[in-house]
Amino acid sequence: MERIPILKLGPFLLVSIQVDMHDRLVLTLQDDLTERIVQTRARGVLIDISGLDMVDSFIGRMLGNIAGMARILDAETVVIGMQPSVAITLVELGLSLPGIRTALNIDRGMDLLRASLEERTEDFSAGNQAG
Amino acid sequence: MERIPILKLGPFLLVSIQVDMHDRLVLTLQDDLTERIVQTRARGVLIDISGLDMVDSFIGRMLGNIAGMARILDAETVVIGMQPSVAITLVELGLSLPGIRTALNIDRGMDLLRASLEERTEDFSAGNQAG
Repeated sequence: MERIPILKLGPFLLVSIQVDMHDRLVLTLQDDLTERIVQTRARGVLIDISGLDMVDSFIGRMLGNIAGMARILDAETVVIGMQPSVAITLVELGLSLPGIRTALNIDRGMDLLRASLEERTEDFSAGNQAG
Repeated sequence: MERIPILKLGPFLLVSIQVDMHDRLVLTLQDDLTERIVQTRARGVLIDISGLDMVDSFIGRMLGNIAGMARILDAETVVIGMQPSVAITLVELGLSLPGIRTALNIDRGMDLLRASLEERTEDFSAGNQAG
């Protein structure tokens, strides 16, 4: 099972990371996810890390890269389900997960994505009116 | 990571099975899931098996058991994301997954759970009126 499933959840995509990530698996996930964003025209990506006991700089970089790729494809990324111990370790390690937004669970993550979607639509309309 | 994450999705719970299941992991999942159903008062469980390339009688029995336990706790179970090849193999092996309902993806699974929830509420009201 060398592939992380990507689930469609309304206008968003959901990825639940449960296994240890290694280089090739990360590349496969990035390929699959960007392809699915384009294919489904998803406007947001939820990445669940509740199954991870540890987030190191490798995972942090992966999350940042995924968020960056999704953003270029016009989809926002929210990381959900971080365990309290993971948050403690991240701060102790000095890792601040730049460019990554977090939410407690799927429901709150979806609220965040919906709000961001409305904001982007408004900005776009305002931009059009100004131009 | 000897634990399968359980995600809350509105009034339902979502479990994404990605790793090879063995006896202890199945027991842990059953414990965790039944506890979460009670704790969150969830009315439905979505089990995503899109990450599985194979569903054998062991997995089939596990899904049936989970659905049975959830039902006793007043939550319906829907299995989602079955790969076409898995459906072919199941029929070829003569496994019909008794007592398990399936749906194409999360969105359709949630529709099914919502419909079943309304039906149960109506049955309950009708029963009350009859009594």
